[in-house]
Amino acid sequence: MLIRPARPEDAAAVWSILEPVIRAGETYTLDSDMSEREALAYWFGPDKETFVAEDGGAIVGTYYIRPNQAGGGRHVCNCGYMTAAAAQGKGVARTMCEHSLAHAKACGFRAMQFNFVVSSNARAVKLWQTLGFATVGRLPAAFAHPVHGLVDALVMFRAL
Amino acid sequence: MLIRPARPEDAAAVWSILEPVIRAGETYTLDSDMSEREALAYWFGPDKETFVAEDGGAIVGTYYIRPNQAGGGRHVCNCGYMTAAAAQGKGVARTMCEHSLAHAKACGFRAMQFNFVVSSNARAVKLWQTLGFATVGRLPAAFAHPVHGLVDALVMFRAL
Repeated sequence: MLIRPARPEDAAAVWSILEPVIRAGETYTLDSDMSEREALAYWFGPDKETFVAEDGGAIVGTYYIRPNQAGGGRHVCNCGYMTAAAAQGKGVARTMCEHSLAHAKACGFRAMQFNFVVSSNARAVKLWQTLGFATVGRLPAAFAHPVHGLVDALVMFRAL
Repeated sequence: MLIRPARPEDAAAVWSILEPVIRAGETYTLDSDMSEREALAYWFGPDKETFVAEDGGAIVGTYYIRPNQAGGGRHVCNCGYMTAAAAQGKGVARTMCEHSLAHAKACGFRAMQFNFVVSSNARAVKLWQTLGFATVGRLPAAFAHPVHGLVDALVMFRAL
């Protein structure tokens, strides 16, 4: 699997990954009716560095990294990861997260924070734990899950 | 004290409150060299509703309220408050927070979250506690304080 910076010509492939995740509304706090233009503007925002994961020439995942806060909070980064529906369960998210941890360290970040991990997303919670993230906060009933109703969200954190 | 929606002509008074807080860099994760234009664009951002507190005709404080997240997180709001240096210790922040809690409830928000309360800002931490906020998260060494060095930041939360 090759992880490389996203290029403008990757937009359609990235959108094909983002769209089902956004439409489902189960894991990200993004409006489920976001347009392609809005979603790509968000994912390729000026505060972010965006990557794609390629496997056999196909784009199977994408992630962004950005400073989580400005000013005195700039040494902590934040990332978001999405895997293509067809590539689930193949370690794409793990590989992207490992890449992001190394990249973050190389960029001088001192820690990585996930602000809002939906607690019902058990696979993600487990994966971040195995990658060394601790749950440092729990936001009670902070997420309205379309199937499960109100569920907690977790704040997860890892020093670099 | 009168709390009312901010108007465009309040910009200069609002900036006179924001500027010393931003320049000090001790309590907000905003770049301390932010320009007036950038700071006002942030404080009056399209995602925010912005208020001012007037006392005897002078603007002594300002706050914003916004949804803390989009999508499934839209029922939780977030606020930021700043008090004029000359009006510290007169209950301005408390009055603004009480106003924001009532306003948030009237708007249909179900909870209020502060994402990043600098732990060395003891006065703020104490005030939010007395107003019913619980510390639901602690971000280790997440804030580089210009005087104290790396300090924790707190995530504080209150149901409405």
